[in-house]
This record gives sequence, structure tokens and C-alpha cells, in this order.
Amino acid sequence: MNTMKAALVQSFTEPLVIGDVPLPSPGPFQALVRVRYSGVCHTDLHAAHGDWPVRPTLPFVPGHEGVGTVIEIGDQVTRLKVGDTVGNAWLWSACGDCEYCQTSWETLCPDQVNGGYSVDGSFGTHMLVDSRYAPIIPAGVDVAAVGPILCAGVTVYKGLKMTDTQPGDWLLISGIGGLGHIAVEYARAMGRRVVAIDIDDAKLDLAVQHGAEVTVNAASVEDPAAEIIERTGGGVHGALVTAVNAHAFPQAVGSLRRGGTVSLVGLPPEKFPLDIFTTVLFGLTVRGSIVGTRRDMTEALDFFARGLIHPTYKLRHLDEINDIFTDMSAGDISGRIVLDLN
Amino acid sequence: MNTMKAALVQSFTEPLVIGDVPLPSPGPFQALVRVRYSGVCHTDLHAAHGDWPVRPTLPFVPGHEGVGTVIEIGDQVTRLKVGDTVGNAWLWSACGDCEYCQTSWETLCPDQVNGGYSVDGSFGTHMLVDSRYAPIIPAGVDVAAVGPILCAGVTVYKGLKMTDTQPGDWLLISGIGGLGHIAVEYARAMGRRVVAIDIDDAKLDLAVQHGAEVTVNAASVEDPAAEIIERTGGGVHGALVTAVNAHAFPQAVGSLRRGGTVSLVGLPPEKFPLDIFTTVLFGLTVRGSIVGTRRDMTEALDFFARGLIHPTYKLRHLDEINDIFTDMSAGDISGRIVLDLN
Amino acid sequence: MNTMKAALVQSFTEPLVIGDVPLPSPGPFQALVRVRYSGVCHTDLHAAHGDWPVRPTLPFVPGHEGVGTVIEIGDQVTRLKVGDTVGNAWLWSACGDCEYCQTSWETLCPDQVNGGYSVDGSFGTHMLVDSRYAPIIPAGVDVAAVGPILCAGVTVYKGLKMTDTQPGDWLLISGIGGLGHIAVEYARAMGRRVVAIDIDDAKLDLAVQHGAEVTVNAASVEDPAAEIIERTGGGVHGALVTAVNAHAFPQAVGSLRRGGTVSLVGLPPEKFPLDIFTTVLFGLTVRGSIVGTRRDMTEALDFFARGLIHPTYKLRHLDEINDIFTDMSAGDISGRIVLDLN
Amino acid sequence: MNTMKAALVQSFTEPLVIGDVPLPSPGPFQALVRVRYSGVCHTDLHAAHGDWPVRPTLPFVPGHEGVGTVIEIGDQVTRLKVGDTVGNAWLWSACGDCEYCQTSWETLCPDQVNGGYSVDGSFGTHMLVDSRYAPIIPAGVDVAAVGPILCAGVTVYKGLKMTDTQPGDWLLISGIGGLGHIAVEYARAMGRRVVAIDIDDAKLDLAVQHGAEVTVNAASVEDPAAEIIERTGGGVHGALVTAVNAHAFPQAVGSLRRGGTVSLVGLPPEKFPLDIFTTVLFGLTVRGSIVGTRRDMTEALDFFARGLIHPTYKLRHLDEINDIFTDMSAGDISGRIVLDLN
Repeated sequence: MNTMKAALVQSFTEPLVIGDVPLPSPGPFQALVRVRYSGVCHTDLHAAHGDWPVRPTLPFVPGHEGVGTVIEIGDQVTRLKVGDTVGNAWLWSACGDCEYCQTSWETLCPDQVNGGYSVDGSFGTHMLVDSRYAPIIPAGVDVAAVGPILCAGVTVYKGLKMTDTQPGDWLLISGIGGLGHIAVEYARAMGRRVVAIDIDDAKLDLAVQHGAEVTVNAASVEDPAAEIIERTGGGVHGALVTAVNAHAFPQAVGSLRRGGTVSLVGLPPEKFPLDIFTTVLFGLTVRGSIVGTRRDMTEALDFFARGLIHPTYKLRHLDEINDIFTDMSAGDISGRIVLDLN
Repeated sequence: MNTMKAALVQSFTEPLVIGDVPLPSPGPFQALVRVRYSGVCHTDLHAAHGDWPVRPTLPFVPGHEGVGTVIEIGDQVTRLKVGDTVGNAWLWSACGDCEYCQTSWETLCPDQVNGGYSVDGSFGTHMLVDSRYAPIIPAGVDVAAVGPILCAGVTVYKGLKMTDTQPGDWLLISGIGGLGHIAVEYARAMGRRVVAIDIDDAKLDLAVQHGAEVTVNAASVEDPAAEIIERTGGGVHGALVTAVNAHAFPQAVGSLRRGGTVSLVGLPPEKFPLDIFTTVLFGLTVRGSIVGTRRDMTEALDFFARGLIHPTYKLRHLDEINDIFTDMSAGDISGRIVLDLN
Repeated sequence: MNTMKAALVQSFTEPLVIGDVPLPSPGPFQALVRVRYSGVCHTDLHAAHGDWPVRPTLPFVPGHEGVGTVIEIGDQVTRLKVGDTVGNAWLWSACGDCEYCQTSWETLCPDQVNGGYSVDGSFGTHMLVDSRYAPIIPAGVDVAAVGPILCAGVTVYKGLKMTDTQPGDWLLISGIGGLGHIAVEYARAMGRRVVAIDIDDAKLDLAVQHGAEVTVNAASVEDPAAEIIERTGGGVHGALVTAVNAHAFPQAVGSLRRGGTVSLVGLPPEKFPLDIFTTVLFGLTVRGSIVGTRRDMTEALDFFARGLIHPTYKLRHLDEINDIFTDMSAGDISGRIVLDLN
Repeated sequence: MNTMKAALVQSFTEPLVIGDVPLPSPGPFQALVRVRYSGVCHTDLHAAHGDWPVRPTLPFVPGHEGVGTVIEIGDQVTRLKVGDTVGNAWLWSACGDCEYCQTSWETLCPDQVNGGYSVDGSFGTHMLVDSRYAPIIPAGVDVAAVGPILCAGVTVYKGLKMTDTQPGDWLLISGIGGLGHIAVEYARAMGRRVVAIDIDDAKLDLAVQHGAEVTVNAASVEDPAAEIIERTGGGVHGALVTAVNAHAFPQAVGSLRRGGTVSLVGLPPEKFPLDIFTTVLFGLTVRGSIVGTRRDMTEALDFFARGLIHPTYKLRHLDEINDIFTDMSAGDISGRIVLDLN
């Protein structure tokens, strides 16, 4: 039997185990991919720790930012062929038939399959993808850098769309970490004017390099929302909250211009109090957004392929995955870890 | 000096005083109106009690659902003439020049003047209106019944628009009181399918008469949201929350189909906890909406003039205003009180 | 070998031939359907006559408004089972992968397969459908009446959506034939106010029965557009042109209120002159719309299942198909022919 | 009596006359402006020649791209004060009360007043503006360069918005003259990818400098639409037609991707034939767009103030106005003429 190397979650309370597992065979519509790189996402930690209501079935291989080469295709595969460069994604596949799939909201499909969660993911030398949903990596891009686009990139790109802003509008990016530092560039490529807020000056410096016009260190000013309102001549038209903490949500809502929209893309376990009086009187909108559709993915990759997006990342070895998880829990990175699986 | 009779708030803690006050003269763009009827809104109670952060200047005359006849016009009035039937409204006037006014969001104008709050209102035999903003009452309508359209009607009509639903979609109306009982009819006239939720069977009966297909008594079922999801085959596409209580908000959010929108039009002083995890994962939208623009008003009145909206109301005398306020605080009415000022 | 009875186009210049043909077997994702009724559409005439640039391959069976019962399913069919009531449609299937399919615009898919055109249709006792695209007929509806919804219904429903109007707006339905007579009812169910224009008073009477508030006989008034502008207080907000003649297009454009939209759903071979000066100065929009997506179909069927749409139709025998085609070419029907295939 | 110098149209068939005319006094809401620069627009030629159905009343002063300093204000002016830098515009004022004004479509107001057409314009040392509609020039901008933004700029900016495209989409700019050369930069600032088409290589070179990725010389290739479709991988998502000739319109429509939109901003006297079959089958949209609203103007000026737009222009003297008109009729300029009125 052929085998592949992978990082396995065998228990929600134990470290991952790296070892050999059977190499899967592609079923109908599936392709087997030799993984070359895989980004590591906070969702992988939540998966490995069983943090969310519906837990993955043990054991499983995390990872939904994998990039590699198709080496075998199953029956009925028409969209991919051997040799193609493809990725996996959180939206590994969907039913195709429900009211959400039929209206290109497959990200809301109740029967979706999630990469590295309900199906094995990219923390290994090989993975399966669904040929109808696998992101096709544009020719010529840096395959080590592109992984973070497959989740962080498409998530912020879609979240930005959902702010209902237009070119020339002010947009607040809250949290300049793995998601936020790319969000600044996507917002700029979309013609928005960017305000960045974080509590780390180094991250804010990166935001400026990525095109932010206004930065606010939330730890240094007394009233960050008031500061933003003043420096944008009345508040931001939209906000993307990538930060997952109790302060970020009310700060973003408080920074909005009347009629503005906050788009949320993080998944904190807590509830946040929403001030209804202000929400009604100022006509505000608060909206959740989860990853992106196949089309959003194509577009997010297109911006990357055109050289407009520059995720910062560090290459690490699969063997270090438990150390990486520990480092990520600490939270102080303005970029992404990418596993080298060559 | 000419005088008029009016109900005056002289103190936020004392009953209103009914008496004679000087008759105002219309300034530029203004018209003097002989009031015939005026609806009474919960906002009038909040105004009289000084409940909100920015209080009216004492003394003042509440009322923003007044209807009457123009008897005198000021300089530069072109839109109205003596004899016209007009109303006042919460949006008594706006600046006309700000970014909100210029984009037909005058309801968000920071410099707006509010009827019966920052300018004297319709609880009297006469009132001033701004000719550029006063709703023009369509010919042939019942002037005693139309008052509630000027606030309750336009508020729910706009709030329904802001749910981003389309004809054929399921729409939840939460709270079948002074706003909700009209909202059911507006929703029907807009082609939506209506679910009504309340804790009073009599109100739910009225909702059925007004076209609701599904009703849920929130006091009688264990999990109202689950009940709604089941009876609508997956949840409502949008919800309009007119109820102002701690249960209505999470019930409405919980009743949504994925991708759905809750529109809030009440002004409760409390904050409500929003479950971010669900909001993000299900792509939900929560949005505030406040009264309606001049155009929304014209449209809301047009639906009424076409005989599609039937506010229930009781005619009372101005002298009873303090009793009316007491009754309204108790909250158990599925309609509106209208003052007879003839 | 099993056989079925069908009407075959063997030549673009000869009558159809009715006879026995081999019964097809369902391939992957396909289902075999025992057809009970099939509407006849003008497109079937164009197909049979080879009128359009890309002609069907001879011989073929026309028909894309068929309704029947699934009697056999192919591999990988999950959405349908034996016994289900389903239809075929002009959009028989699409690629599922292109930019149009991925954004729920499968009606624009360049690789779509068209029922009764590029694949055999419903003018016979049996037909194949693609289980992923076949409309599922809601329980309890009249299967003889529902056929016209599958093409005429969904076409006008989608075309109405594309007028960018809202409830309460005036909508012109141009041509009260097989499409238009249903369009009036869809527009009403969507809350629009309807103006109907035709040159036949009997058709205009039907429009009134279906809810039209204003009717104009284009043959009886000197300037139909001026008449419509006057009777709607400024023109219609949107127009749906189902008529295919040289007058209907400029009449519809000329009837628009400023900022209005004309939606075209017919397929005339001619070009129509567009007055650019007026189009620009009045901010007009002219837009084409072709059939509807799977979701549009579900919605169009839902309105029908709720009893809001009443296509008029006459039941005829398959053997009469050539006579029917002759009658249809004459064009004077306000409804639909439905073939009885029981 | 005080006088000012201006260029007057006294006859639609004679050259303009330059001379002294009485200095006007600002009425209510008006301001008197000392003009410093004024762009010259093709519309000024049409006005001077009486080309359009409704002609200006003789004599009149053309010009609607004027920029200058407020030197006197009339009654009730609150939005401007002496010393402010303001412009006039084609949309000199509107009624404020109609359904178009109330929905921020004042550009469609039937009672609008047009600068340099129904009211005297900017081809002189002084002009009146309506303080409620006059564009306020942002601080720090080059007042000689900003004039063309007031008409050419806002027209293309609004026209681009009306293409319903999004950042990352392909956008065709047809005609790289006085409007098109700015349109390329606006489209880029809005995140669109630009294809430029013209028949003059020098203009196409300017388009490339302004950010166009693809250029097509319509005089050099056999099938410009096919060329565009190939080089954009399927056609453009939207097109802005600034060119006023019989070829530009069908070329733009033919270059569209399915579902795409052509926005027209020129005012040719001819009708253009629209191919309905393709329009319907490909779901295309053709739309007119006229100048821009007050808000569009503010936004268009904001992009300019941020240094993103670089109109090319030549400064000329008011005395040369008849020569300028002759040159402009010849049509071969990729920019704008600006009159120096200092």
C-alpha cells in the first residue's frame, strides 16, 4: 500500500502526530494532489483543539491553504488534469443543489465539506481535492506565497465586498495580523482609502507599507473611534473586523459614518453587545461574512497574480507543526506560516 | 395676539399642560397648518419624559403624525399653497446640503429638525411645517386614518425595504402593535410572505386578517425561532423587529435563513448581545433603520391611498393626552391613538 | 428495443413527423421521464424552421415545457427519484464551472444544453432530463397548467426582476400573448402596478382580469407612449417587452419615466434603432434577459403553486402539432397550447 | 453700472462676440464669482450652434466648467462665503422637490437649470452660481487644471459607476479624447482594468500612460471587438462610450462579456441600431448616463484632489474662443481647452 506523510490530530487535547498514512485514491470528481506548500490558519488550531460546536471526526489531517500538483484524477473529472497546479480550501465542496448553491452562495451550503475539518486537509505530502471546487492557481505565481490567499486572502476580499463601500470610500481594517495585512492591500486594489487599527506599531508600519493612509494604535489613544472619525472627516464608510477581541467590535461600530457597514470575518466564541439605539438612529449595518465562493476565490487569486497582494509569511517544516501552533496561539504575527512540503 | 390650543410639555416629570399658546407665523419656506388629526407615537412619550440622550428644550409641543390644512404660507414657499392637506413628520426638515441629504439619506442628516421634539409638533390646533419636507396627503384619503402612516407607516415601509428581501420571500414581523400591524400589510403589498410573532393572540389574529400566513405566539411555544424555521421551510429571508424587548432581537436573528437580514426600527435603551459566530458562519446581517425619506413617505402614502393599508386606531380628545400616555406605557394596543383636533 | 412516440423534426422545411423512436436510457446524472403534458413555445417553431444562426442537429424532438414522472434514474442521481414530478426546460443543463455558472448566471453559460434544441425535448411520451437542472414541480399543482411556467413563466418572471423596479412602481407589459398574459400576474404578485399594451381588446380584457390597472390599445390611440405617460403620472418605471415587432420597442422606451428600464425577452431577428440622445439625457436602460436560472425557476413555480398565476391554455393532441405550429404562426392567442401526452 | 467681460452667443449662425456686459447681482441662494479659468466643452459648441431640440434663449454666455472665487453672496446663502473657490456646472441647479431630486437623481430633474445654456455660464470674468449646487473646489488643487473635472470628469466618473462593474473587472473606454483620457484614470482609481480603443495611436499612448493595459487601434485591426474579446479572455465586463460615431456603439456592445453593460455619455443626434437577438441571448445592458449629481461631483473632485487624475489641457485666451470652437469641431485633441480669465 502506498503511503504519504501527514500531521494527524488524534486527540483534541494532545499534540499532532506526524507519520505515514495510507495514500488516498481519488473518487469521482476528485483529484489527488502532491502538496508543495500549505498555509497554517487559526482555524486549524480551533480544529485541532475541537473548539467549535461541531467537531471534526478523529483522526484527521488539518490544513486548507494547500497548494500542489495534480498527480491523478478520478472519474468524471473534466475541470482538472494531471500536472495542473491547484489548491484546497475551507470550502472543499458543496452540494451544488440547495438554494444557496443555486444562487452562488455555496459558502452558506448546509452540506458543505470543509478542507482539513470534515475531510482531510493539506498538512501532508498529498491531499484529495474536489475538482469542481478546487482553486486553480494562475500560471506564474509564487506557489510558496499563494497559500495564504486561499483562505486569508479570499476571506478578507469577500469581507471587503460585503462592506457595501465603493472606490474612494474610507475603510477601516481592524487587526493587522494574518488577515488584516492582506486586507489593506485588497482594499487599496479595490480603490478604497484605508485606516488601519491595531495595538502593535510594527503591524501598523506594515499597514502603511501596504497602503494605509491613516493608522491608529488602539493602545495609545484614549478614544480610537473618535480619533478615526476626526481623521477621516466623519468616520469610515465601512469596516472589516479581523481582530477577535472584545474591544475591536464596538470600536469598529463606533468608527462608522452614518449608514456605514461593519463586516465581521473572525469567529470569536463570545457574544458582543450591540447598541441598538445608535444602530437604528445612524442606520448602521453589522454583517457576518465567511470565506468566499469559487468566484470570489478566482478574483482574489487574480489580484494576487497581478502582483497587487504581498502576504508576509515564514516557511517552516511540517515537523514543527506543534511549535507553530504554540507560537500562533501567542498571536503576535503580522503574516502567515507556510509549511514546506516539497 | 392670536392663540392656539396645544398640549405642552413643561417638565419631563410632570403631566402635559393643555392651554392656549401664541399662534406662530410661518417663516421662509414654512406653512401654518390647521391641524385636524394627530397620531400619538411612543416617541412622544420618550420626548415628554426626556428619555433620550439629547432632550427637547422645554417647553414644547409633541406630535409628529399631524394632518391638517395649510392656512398661511411664508416667503419662498412654492411646493404648498393655502388649502393643501399636509402633515408633519419626525423628519421635519434637514439641511439639504450634507453628504446624507445629497444622497437622499436625509434621515441621517446630523442637522435634521425633528417634529414634536426640536420643533413644536402636532398636539395642538395649529402647527408649522417646512414646505420642502412636509408630506403632502394624497387626495381622497381618510384624514383621520392617515396620521399613523406619517410615522408608523413610513418607518415600517422603509424598514421592510432595508431587509433586502424580494417578492415571494418570507418575512418575519416581530411585534404586532402600532407598527407591526401595519407592517404586515406593507409586507403583503410588497409581495412578501409574512410570519407574525407576538405574545398576544388577539394581535396575531389581526396579523392574519392583514395577510400573515404563519403566526407564532412566542409565549406559547418553547422555541419560537425553531418553530418559524420549520414552518417556513428553512427560516425567514428577512425580519422586521418592531418589538422592543430583550427576547425579540435574538428570536428574530435565530429565525433567519442563512444570508438573511434583520431590520431594527425600535429604539430600546439597552444593548443586545449579538452572537458573532452564527452571524459570520451563516452570513447574517443586522441593520438599523430610522423613519423614512421624503420619497419613502410619498411611497408609503401611495400604498395607503390605494387602499392597501388599514391602520387600526381610536379617536381621542387632546384633553385626554395624559391618560393616553398612561395607557400607551401599558403597551397592549394593536393600533394607534389619533387625536381629534377638529 | 423499447420505443416511445414523438414528434420529430427531420427537415427545416418539412412538417414534423410523428412516429416511434428508440426509448433513451438515462446516463450519469440523468433521469428518464414519462411525459404527461408539454407546452408549445414559439421557440419550438424557430427550432423546427431552423430560423436562428446555430441550428439544431437533425433529426430532433422539440419541446422544453414538458412535465411528467420520473420512471428511471441514471448513475449519481441524488436530487431526483423514481416517482418525482419534474419538467424539462430551455436551460436543460449547463457546464457548472464557467464564470457564469459560478455566479448563478447559468443562463449565460456558453456550453449550456437547450431542451428540444441541442438535446431532444418534450414533444413525445418520454424525455431525458439532467437531474441537476430539471425543475421539480411542487406538490399539488395542476400538471396540465404548469408547463407554460417552465418557459413563458420563468422568462417573464426573470425579465420583470431585471427591470430594477420595486413594489408600487408602474410596469408596462408590452404584448399580452403567451408571455404577457402571465407577466401581468407575476408583476402584480411582485407588487407592481401594471399597464398593459396590445392591439387586441380581448387580450387587454384578459390583462385587466389579471390585474392590469391601465390598458392601452396601441392600434386605437395616436401616441401610445404619450397616453401611458399621462395615465401613469409621468411614465412607467419599467417595461417588459414580450411583443416582437418594430413598434413595441420604441413605444416601450418612449413610455419610460426618467431613469427607467426596458427589459427585452423576445428574440426578433431585426435590429431596432435606439435613440441615444434620449437614452443619455433621461438616463434610460435597455436590457436583454433570457429565460431564468434554476433559482428563478423555483421561485416562478412557487408563485404558481401558491395560486397566483393562471396561464390560459388549450389542450391539444401531439398528432396535431403541425396544425398547432400553423396556428401559432398566425399569432393571435393570449395563452399557450399544451400537448396532452397521457 | 458695473460691467464684466464675456463671450456672447448672439446668433446660432454667427461667431461669438466678446465684449462688456452688465455685472449681475446674486439673488437668493446665489453667489457672484470672479471666474479664473473655464474649460470648454463640446456641449458649448452645440449650445452656440443651437444643435439640440431645446435651444438656449439668445443672447447667452456659454461655459459650464468655470472655476473662481466668490466675491458676493445673496440672501439665504449658507453653504458658501466670500473667498471660497467654487465652480459652475452643467447641472447649475435643480428643483429640489421632484421625485428625481428627492432620490438624489437631480441630474434627471425636468426643471433643472443648465450652466451656460439656460443660465449664463463661465465664458467671462464673472458668473453667478446657485450656492446649493455649485461644486466646492477642494483646497490645494490646481485651479487651472480642475475645470475639466466639473464636466468631463464627473461625466465619466458617473458613467463608469453606471457600468455596474467591480474592481478587477475589464472596462473598455471607447474614445480617448477630452472625456476618455480622464476616464482611463478614473477607471484605474476605481480598481478596474482598462482597455482603450481609438483610431489615433497618440491618444492610445496617452491611455497607456494613464494606466490602460490593453489598447486597440480601431482603424488598424479588422475586427476590434474580436480583438478585445481575445485579449481580455472573453470580453469586457463594462464599457464607457465617449466616442460619438457610428462605429463606437456596436464595437462596444460587441466587446462585452455576457451580462456586461455599456454606458453611453455622449449625445449624438443619430439613432443607433441595437441587435436585440444578441442583447437578449447574452443578457446585455445598454444605458445612458448624463453628467453627475452633487455627490458624484464631490467624489470626482476628491479623486482629483488626491492626485489621481491628470487632465491634459491647453490654456487659451477668451479672445480666441471662435478659433477654439473651430479647432474643436475638427476633433483631434486628447484633452481639454481651458480659458484663462485672470
